[in-house]
Amino acid sequence: MTNTATSRAAFDLSLYLVLDPDMCGGVAGMVRVTEAAINGGVTVVQLRALGWRKRAFWDAACALQPLCRSRGVPLIINDHIDVALAVDADGVHVGQKDLPAKEARRLLGDTKIIGVSVSNAQQWRDAETGAADYIGVGPVQLTATKPEAGPALGVEGLRTLLASMKSPASTLRTVAIGSVNVHNARAVMETGVDGIAVVSAICASKAPEEAARALCEVIGS
Amino acid sequence: MTNTATSRAAFDLSLYLVLDPDMCGGVAGMVRVTEAAINGGVTVVQLRALGWRKRAFWDAACALQPLCRSRGVPLIINDHIDVALAVDADGVHVGQKDLPAKEARRLLGDTKIIGVSVSNAQQWRDAETGAADYIGVGPVQLTATKPEAGPALGVEGLRTLLASMKSPASTLRTVAIGSVNVHNARAVMETGVDGIAVVSAICASKAPEEAARALCEVIGS
Repeated sequence: MTNTATSRAAFDLSLYLVLDPDMCGGVAGMVRVTEAAINGGVTVVQLRALGWRKRAFWDAACALQPLCRSRGVPLIINDHIDVALAVDADGVHVGQKDLPAKEARRLLGDTKIIGVSVSNAQQWRDAETGAADYIGVGPVQLTATKPEAGPALGVEGLRTLLASMKSPASTLRTVAIGSVNVHNARAVMETGVDGIAVVSAICASKAPEEAARALCEVIGS
Repeated sequence: MTNTATSRAAFDLSLYLVLDPDMCGGVAGMVRVTEAAINGGVTVVQLRALGWRKRAFWDAACALQPLCRSRGVPLIINDHIDVALAVDADGVHVGQKDLPAKEARRLLGDTKIIGVSVSNAQQWRDAETGAADYIGVGPVQLTATKPEAGPALGVEGLRTLLASMKSPASTLRTVAIGSVNVHNARAVMETGVDGIAVVSAICASKAPEEAARALCEVIGS
């Protein structure tokens, strides 16, 4: 147990779990899935609860924060910077319709992790010049868990985008998201991303620890 | 023009406008309605945009903040404490399903105004012992602008609640909300509240300045 916050520089993106509260079965289910998934090798946990009211979202964050902190796995809060501040989460993830990353940085200070959702080259450039530590690139395939996400890049589209955008000079890290699972995870990793983000592949599994472990094996982390 | 923030102690609750972005016609419409309503005598403006994504909400807050600040009228942000922090709003208003007022106070510090929605004696007691400066009590009548609000108190129910709860020793102020309009505003004020909050009565009016002025005349402010 580390019981200390994960630093911005040191976090490991390789297997990034995005929690879906409905798939997990509410707050208690998210805690169970998170614990099992960390045992199986998940390196980052994001709390995302699209459509949840703030009180319920905060309740979930309060339950997850001590678990993640004790296991040395960063807890990232989707969208709600106020909740991230309230529970002293390790960072936030903002989409293109959420607060801009620069505002997030101003509110959170220099020690917290900030991620941004990116679907194309323009958004990548904006993130590069902004305050983000990493970008979530996708969707790799169309996904039912975030129906408002843009058109799918496909594995080839992801590879092309990475090849044209990823600069050796940049410190911006990348995680691929959108229907990434045990079947396509290796191909996705081979596009050059630093990690994969999964929702259903762990949250919808009856055995989230084994699901996480299988993904780790496939991506070689 | 004052161009300074309104202090927690000094704010005037008498005519409290809650903006409805759809009724006003988006951000530009909210700015027009706010300017007219302040000319007509509105003393507090709350930005509420239920269901809006955070980026659009922040855009609206950025447009409203300098207007309200320049007119010396506090701008209160509904629910989103991160947006209130980002635009340096004068305060926040939280409902029973939003972050608790104590968390809001911790994030916002001692200078900002905090309001809480209250529908019954228990919620009032919680607000009294919490961090709130004022409570929005209601709904006075059922309202289409906040369908998830609880059962209507009615003017008599409001009077009974105030008579049983309002203590001379308390500094907690009260504003009545929920289908308050020019027809019932005087009766609502006579229950003992410190002000009335309106949505449709101003936002849905073709002449928001005159609508605000008429409300001021009825409540004698």
